[in-house]
Amino acid sequence: MKIPEILVIETVHQPGSLARVLQVIADAGLTIEHLTALRRDQGRTVWEITLEMDEEADRSLYERIGALPTARFLGKSDRVFNRHRGGKIHTVPSLAISSRQVLRDVYTPGVARVCLAIQKDPAAAREFTALGHTVAIVTNGTAVLGLGDIGALAGLPVMEGKAALFAELVGINGVPILLKERRPERVIESVLAIEAGFGAIQLEDFAAPECFAIESELRRRLAKPVLHDDQHGTAVVALAALLNAAQRSGHDLRASTVGQIGLGAAGSGIVRLLRAYGVAHVLGTDRNPEALARLEGYGGEPTTLAALMQRADVVIATTGVKGLIAPESVRRGQVILALSNPDPEIEPLVARERGAAFAADGKGINNLLAYPGLFRGALEANAAHFSDAMLMAAAHTIAASARGDELVPDPLDKTLHEQVTAAVRAAVAA
Amino acid sequence: MKIPEILVIETVHQPGSLARVLQVIADAGLTIEHLTALRRDQGRTVWEITLEMDEEADRSLYERIGALPTARFLGKSDRVFNRHRGGKIHTVPSLAISSRQVLRDVYTPGVARVCLAIQKDPAAAREFTALGHTVAIVTNGTAVLGLGDIGALAGLPVMEGKAALFAELVGINGVPILLKERRPERVIESVLAIEAGFGAIQLEDFAAPECFAIESELRRRLAKPVLHDDQHGTAVVALAALLNAAQRSGHDLRASTVGQIGLGAAGSGIVRLLRAYGVAHVLGTDRNPEALARLEGYGGEPTTLAALMQRADVVIATTGVKGLIAPESVRRGQVILALSNPDPEIEPLVARERGAAFAADGKGINNLLAYPGLFRGALEANAAHFSDAMLMAAAHTIAASARGDELVPDPLDKTLHEQVTAAVRAAVAA
Repeated sequence: MKIPEILVIETVHQPGSLARVLQVIADAGLTIEHLTALRRDQGRTVWEITLEMDEEADRSLYERIGALPTARFLGKSDRVFNRHRGGKIHTVPSLAISSRQVLRDVYTPGVARVCLAIQKDPAAAREFTALGHTVAIVTNGTAVLGLGDIGALAGLPVMEGKAALFAELVGINGVPILLKERRPERVIESVLAIEAGFGAIQLEDFAAPECFAIESELRRRLAKPVLHDDQHGTAVVALAALLNAAQRSGHDLRASTVGQIGLGAAGSGIVRLLRAYGVAHVLGTDRNPEALARLEGYGGEPTTLAALMQRADVVIATTGVKGLIAPESVRRGQVILALSNPDPEIEPLVARERGAAFAADGKGINNLLAYPGLFRGALEANAAHFSDAMLMAAAHTIAASARGDELVPDPLDKTLHEQVTAAVRAAVAA
Repeated sequence: MKIPEILVIETVHQPGSLARVLQVIADAGLTIEHLTALRRDQGRTVWEITLEMDEEADRSLYERIGALPTARFLGKSDRVFNRHRGGKIHTVPSLAISSRQVLRDVYTPGVARVCLAIQKDPAAAREFTALGHTVAIVTNGTAVLGLGDIGALAGLPVMEGKAALFAELVGINGVPILLKERRPERVIESVLAIEAGFGAIQLEDFAAPECFAIESELRRRLAKPVLHDDQHGTAVVALAALLNAAQRSGHDLRASTVGQIGLGAAGSGIVRLLRAYGVAHVLGTDRNPEALARLEGYGGEPTTLAALMQRADVVIATTGVKGLIAPESVRRGQVILALSNPDPEIEPLVARERGAAFAADGKGINNLLAYPGLFRGALEANAAHFSDAMLMAAAHTIAASARGDELVPDPLDKTLHEQVTAAVRAAVAA
């Protein structure tokens, strides 16, 4: 499996030194993700080169670089690890507790009065505690990123990343909750046991098909927002991208035949939301019969990959299978979103060469665009659940914020998240 | 039940105005906890007067103040509520996520490498996540402050207060976890379901006797620090106070006969720790036979209140019953700690008048002195559990930090918490 690795390489400061290094990397079939000069002194330059690589498979690369007469392999960078050291989130008091008087107000004895006010009227908890901006980020680690079932503890850096981004982008306290349980009924029980302390529940990286039962049961039993991000966060961003892709290629998305390749959590979420948006004809394909039944439940039509490529005006792929879409199956005028990361089902360039009106991969199609504003908006509006209107409001706002050739905007733009928040909040009120 | 109330009162700025107000308050049998002038203009002064009062019982006080010719009752202050507005804790990212490069390192794709490192070696989670400074503050709200069983949600302001103080004093992320369950076995299951995301577990405000089974079972099943603060945090601070009281009154605590009045969570914790410290003779009294059995389990001797007062050199009371200790039962030379808040079992002044060598109430005997350093020290040392050596190290450090006449030091002194942390850490290593 390919994941990013940052190599630290020293070259002699003369023409061709770096080019030779890059040629060795190219010969290994690897793409440069990022390249920076760290420092230069005494006629030598130290570079950080980021590659998506499979360390086991590509280890010999280090020797081949080291064997160049004008380069030296210094090692791998610790930067990613250093940025994780001690964790990515910290709790701070909202008010400095610097005097006895403040202590008496926010702790004993003053706090007793606030406790009694909440006992009398539980709704007061939203005003006088952090409940209204606190979200549990719950996982059992069964489907983390592209890594699969690595367990909840190994998934913690991802949950902390989500929490850090919640804090950075919309001022939400995200709390990673790691569950050891895999059985859906026990996962549900565990969440129900602790939900009282959270304003909303974000389900993360639960494997299909268990994720569907877990989410729907929690939605049924809780009068607070619950969202399985891998289904609906991804669907919102995919819909946003599709809205822009369809517009730019002259398609009317609702009147198009859309084909969804891969019906796991993301694919099912996309089909569901497209149907809710009003797409009349949705085709789908997956090896799993249960996934096809789910497709039919959403009013979609199971078919084969070949038939889908034949019939669909818009093709979306979320399979994780590199190169699944044969270039010769692409039809002229199709819109193709091959969303698997890091390796898409078809390279956009290839798809366009074969006549696609529009083609893009999953780079940038990040649910980070959606989830902060979805949760902030839902919490601000005190929504009892996430509705399709809220998801679609987020998708439209994200689509409208894309600039130039981008399908979707920069996920670090805080204005975007404010706009998504406002749109979601308005959709609750509507 | 008496809890603090801040009255806002305007007086005419002339001699005797404020005195008359205070006389009305005195006539109601209430004590002034705090008094501040808010502002003065046009010959009038506005005061904030803090009283421990029972609002239902004492409401007529407002009218009596308002009936004074030189005073006006303006209302109650919102200051305590305002200081709780929006909650008392916020999450912040440890690193500003301000560029694509940082995002790629701390979120996808870079985070994958950290996930894999933890999957390979779970111990790496302590280095590359916030686990090592994250503590679950778990409650079911069955014994919150002196308020009793008000439920977990109404207890949230207390848990947030603990979390804010964890953050302020020792840089720990405290995460309130509210459980709806009362049955000990279900509480235990719920904590076990979510413990993986926390470096340690603080149990708060669980009622006796369920608190004992819950804590002991969690200690048995988890290889990480678990502490029921109401038992052991209180015991540590009580031991610290006793060490100072005994020394100042010339008692050798280990050779003294200690009498514990009230054997709930706090009283049982105190007996247990005193026995572990080496006090040979511990007497105890409680109406509950189960509590007496617990006392015997710790090597203590059940007796009556009268016999205890007769025999004990050192008396500690944690009953919540105002005035329980009759002044005439006090013996010359006794050390008396009447710890119930806000109203002690005997007023220290009265006890001293009756010949007590040393007497104090529970003001200042706050487990805030102990829990931050206990947890920080345990986490830094990667302790598998809290040992008596760790509790006693904390008690000695707290006792040694008291200045002048104080039994215990200022809980907002960060140096104290650093010292407790260091002592606890050293006790793990020893």
